[in-house]
Parts: sequence; structure tokens; C-alpha cells
Amino acid sequence: MAPISFARGAPAPECIDVDLVADCARVALERDGTAILSYGLGGGYGPLRELLGERHGVDPSRVFVTTGGLQGFVFYAAAQLQRRPGRVLVEGPTYDRPLKLLGWRGGEVVSLPLDDEGLDPDALAAELARPGDVSFLYTIPTFQNPSGRTLGTDRRRRLAELVAAHGLDVLEDDPYGQVRYEGVAPPSVLELEGGAHVAFTSSFSKTVAPGLRVGYVVVPESLRAAYEDQAVSTYISPPLLPQAAVHELFARGAFEPNLDRIRGLLRTRRDAMLDALATQMPDGVRWSEPEGGYFLWVDFAAGTDAGALLGRATEAGVTFVRGTDFFPGGESGAGSARLAFSFESPERIAEGVALLASAL
Amino acid sequence: MAPISFARGAPAPECIDVDLVADCARVALERDGTAILSYGLGGGYGPLRELLGERHGVDPSRVFVTTGGLQGFVFYAAAQLQRRPGRVLVEGPTYDRPLKLLGWRGGEVVSLPLDDEGLDPDALAAELARPGDVSFLYTIPTFQNPSGRTLGTDRRRRLAELVAAHGLDVLEDDPYGQVRYEGVAPPSVLELEGGAHVAFTSSFSKTVAPGLRVGYVVVPESLRAAYEDQAVSTYISPPLLPQAAVHELFARGAFEPNLDRIRGLLRTRRDAMLDALATQMPDGVRWSEPEGGYFLWVDFAAGTDAGALLGRATEAGVTFVRGTDFFPGGESGAGSARLAFSFESPERIAEGVALLASAL
Repeated sequence: MAPISFARGAPAPECIDVDLVADCARVALERDGTAILSYGLGGGYGPLRELLGERHGVDPSRVFVTTGGLQGFVFYAAAQLQRRPGRVLVEGPTYDRPLKLLGWRGGEVVSLPLDDEGLDPDALAAELARPGDVSFLYTIPTFQNPSGRTLGTDRRRRLAELVAAHGLDVLEDDPYGQVRYEGVAPPSVLELEGGAHVAFTSSFSKTVAPGLRVGYVVVPESLRAAYEDQAVSTYISPPLLPQAAVHELFARGAFEPNLDRIRGLLRTRRDAMLDALATQMPDGVRWSEPEGGYFLWVDFAAGTDAGALLGRATEAGVTFVRGTDFFPGGESGAGSARLAFSFESPERIAEGVALLASAL
Repeated sequence: MAPISFARGAPAPECIDVDLVADCARVALERDGTAILSYGLGGGYGPLRELLGERHGVDPSRVFVTTGGLQGFVFYAAAQLQRRPGRVLVEGPTYDRPLKLLGWRGGEVVSLPLDDEGLDPDALAAELARPGDVSFLYTIPTFQNPSGRTLGTDRRRRLAELVAAHGLDVLEDDPYGQVRYEGVAPPSVLELEGGAHVAFTSSFSKTVAPGLRVGYVVVPESLRAAYEDQAVSTYISPPLLPQAAVHELFARGAFEPNLDRIRGLLRTRRDAMLDALATQMPDGVRWSEPEGGYFLWVDFAAGTDAGALLGRATEAGVTFVRGTDFFPGGESGAGSARLAFSFESPERIAEGVALLASAL
């Protein structure tokens, strides 16, 4: 039997409505086949750019539909570091793949502390007061990967003020915001700031299907030309068929109902993990309780080595990702773990948490 | 009326069999929908990797299916420059997009002369004897973009010998090789060398449809892990639906018949351009006569400024790409042009060449 994976940040297979996507792809090819199968623009499939521009209240020329959200980060970092070299600020912990990409580029990466309310704005203000240039801040304010934490509304306003005061450029990464199980969504930093310095990226990996690799980025007007240069020089245009299928999903009004269905499937998984943690975990263990997304963050009792625990847990049949993977150079997180509740069934989640508790 | 474009290196729309591709996408989703719509491996759609591994006689783990051939170059250059920093050798002229990407990275790019038989191996040998490290040679040996020239078989053997003697790493880019209208294909450098130092990249943009953005790279075993790292860190996995559609095209035996149809359509365009050039061009103008591909290269009579000519031609209603765009820093090519015969109809090609002749 395959190990129970709290490591995979992927949706359960039943989240993906294969028939729906297949029919959307079919209709898209029937309606617009020649354009979809020809070279397109670096920004991706025109009708989807227009739709996303409308949703975000920006000109479609500022929307780039990319091969997944990560590719959007790659283009952003390249274009932004070219126009404004300097240190990159990230959250500690943060998504590990951007850390790896930034590590390859060289240059300083500064990890700013998070608490239960997300990024600490005082720490950001102090960092901005340090000498030397800052290229940009990379933040995942909602249901953060890996912590599951969400930046509170007051802090978002404070962040927008810091952006305005310092001319700080920000990439707001929001792949999980729409996968909300309860509560009210706070405004995006993009909305609060207006889009002069904040770029916003999201993805349909969590709301439609990850294998389509359809993400997008809304960039400030000042970055548009450089961003387009990156996209065109990397792939001329992205594959248009998956993007046209996503557009058709919206056009027929199927996006929201499908998303509601996904939310229902994942809510039970999140609940199963929170219930199991409350029942099974020994004293001294703390975890985040996200209102959405894929992940929660566990701080084990003082002295626990998450690396050694991962070894024992894997032998017992359950896996997770160590906290150190989400800090530059593994500088912190040794007693912490990211647990994904998105992939396994509620039954296997309960079983996996019990195995993890035994391994502790 | 739209200007006649000898600039666009794109297939004529009638080269793309929309119904065939649509049906292949449909069948692929029916057969393997959940896998296609889930996260996959950095190397792309498994069955297509296997098929391409078999065609090239290599293990499928060495095949990476990418979002078009250019993305394959981006990954190769990043991985190769990381493991072996040094100057990059290119053909003069060469494909302009890699030149731009290499320019962004910084570092020395050396342009080696081409003649009617392709890359001059003596010039390569002399360059290899210069002090300092070489990272890799980038070559497009068949129906080269932009020159339309093909490296002769003897020179390919000589190149393979130089690779063996110097441990030179090579990226052999072959997007056009299968789009052959006449004559016999020479062996690939990969075949002659065996694949220890030569990576090979191609694409289905010219043989199926460019908007699918399906290319692939066969990498030496020694580069496999670093290449995979680049792919995974850029897009986790590429979009799988276009790749699965290409696989289905092969599976049902439709690839070769479709390619024959494309060859027929493009042969008439190449013939139309060669006929028109022979009839219309004034004395002193020379051009390549490719047996396949999309492009031919024109050297205008001494003293002609292709940049000024482009201005006059564009006003008259025909466009092309200036020779200087295909040399690092525009160091050469001022009296030359790339003409693409792939996009326009034979009638418009004849008309366009007449307009170009008038503009001269």
C-alpha cells in the first residue's frame, strides 16, 4: 500500500472533473481551433486574458497567462531583478520552489517572520529601513504555503501603506485564496494598493486541474514590457489549448459550481485532519487552523527533530515535508512540519495522523 | 490588406489539421484523463517520452518533453552553464531568440562562420584551440534558422570527431529536419556521436501544430538530473494535454501521413519563392536553396543596407527579418535578410518577391 502522503501539495483525484474539462477542450477547439493551434502571444490565450483583466479591473495587456503559477514567478523574478537589482524578501517559512530558484540566481534572500496573523509588518518596516536596495517582496498572504496562515486585513492595509511609502515592489501569490471553506475573504493586497507596485499571481491548478498548467500574473504597467520579453523569449507563446479550455469553463458558467464542489471535497479533508490532530497529538504540539487552502503547519514540542521524525514516520507509512525546507538555507523550522490535507481521503488522513502521533 | 510576411517563421494555417488534433485530444482525455489533468513529472507525458526514447534509441529518462523547443533551450543553457561555465559558441547567423536569452545571462557568445555547407569545422577547431573554457556549441545543422543551410555529412563526422577529441558539449537543434521536400536526410550529430556530449532538441511545432507548444530534448545522461531540476523548478510539470494529443497522433499512425501533407503544402511555397527570386532579383543577389524547412537567406548586392530596404519594403507591403538580428550584437549581416516561405500562399509569395525586387 502506498504511504499516506501529507507531503503532496496536490488535489485529490476526485477534485478533477475530467469529463467537464474534456468537453470544454472539445468545444474550445471546435470554436477557435486554428487560433488555439497556431503561435499566439506571449501573454497567452486572448479571451482568457480579457476575462481575467475584467475580473481584476485591469487592462488585459497587463495579464499574462502562464504555464502554471510557478512559471509566472520565474518570469517575474527575472524581469524584476533585471530592472531593480537588490535583495529579495520572503516570508519565513515560504514556498520552497521559489527559494530554490532564487538560490540559483545568487544574491541575498531575507526571510521575514510570520505569526498567526501572517507576515509581521513591523519586521518588514525594519527590513526596509536597512541600507541597500530591495528588489521585491514575495508574499503568499492567504492560506499560505506552507503555513496555512492568512494575513489579516489590518496588516494588509499596513502592507499597502509600506508599499506606497517605500515604493516597494511586491509579488502577491494567491493560488489558494478561492479554495476557502468558511469565513470571509480579506481584500487582496493588489486591490488595496491599486497595482502600481503590486503584481498578483494565481492559478487554476487548485480550482480546475493542475495538469492543465494554467496560471496567470497581473503585472504593474511599468513591468509589462519586460515581463512580455521574458515570456516570448522563453516559449514564444504558452500552450493555448489548456487556457482555452479554462476560458470555456468560465464561458459556460461552470467555474463557480465546479469550485464549490472542490471546496466541499476538501473541507471534509481539512476537518478530518484538524479533528485527528486534536484527538491524537500529545501536549505541547501546536498547529495552524486554516479556513481554506491545502496545508497546515505543525510546531512540535520543544526539542523534537522533524528530520528524525520524518524518518520514523516514513517507515510507519506516512510522509510530510520538514519545516527546514521552507527557509533559506534551512535556517529555521527544525521542529516544524507542513502537512497537506488536500490529497488523501478523510479516512486515510485520520489513519496518517495516528501513525504520526505514534512516531512522535 | 495585411502586409505579405516573409518575416513570420510560422506554418500557413492550412498546415494545421485542426480536426485531427481535436480528435486526438478528445481520445487522449478519454483514455488517460485523470493522469493528464494531474501534476506530472518534469519530463512531461510518460507515454510520449517512451515513444521518443524509442525513436532515438535512448532511455526515456533522458527525454524531456517541453513547452516548445525554445523552452528546451532555456533549460539546457541554464543547466549546462551551471555545470560548465564558459563561452557559448553559436553559428553566424543563428536563431535570434537564443541569442537574446544568452545576452541576458551575460558572458561571451562567439559567432562561428557558416558557408553553403553549414558551420565551418576549421573555424570551430580554431576556436576550440583558444584559451578559456567553452560551455557548449549551439548548432542547427539542418535547414538552419535563419539561413536554410544544411551541414554536410562529412562535416557532421568532423564535428563528431571534434566533440570526442575536446569533450565539447553540443546542443543540436533540429526543428526543421523532418520538413524535408527532397533529397536524403544526413545522419544527426547525435547519432554520429552517440549522445555522451550531444543533446538533441526538436519540436512538433512544424510537424503537428505550433500552438500545442510541444518540443523535446534528449540530454546526455550526465546532464539528466540538472535538466530535470530546471524543468521541475520552472513549471513542476509541463501541460500534459497537448503532449498526450501528440502521443495519440503517433499511436493511431497519423503522424507520418499528416507530415507528408504538410511537406506537400510547403514544398509549393518554397518552389514559388525560388522561382520568383530567380525571375525577379537583380544581378548580384544570392540566396540559399534549401531542400526543406521554412527559410532562405538572401545576400543582397554589395552596398545594400537591409535595414533601409526593410523600411522601403514594409511601405510597399512586404516584410522580412534583417540579417543583423541573427548575429550577436548585430556584428554582421547588414546586407542580408531571412525570408520565410512557410506562411504565405504561393501567389502572395510571388507578389511579395516582386515588391521586394522593386524596393531594391
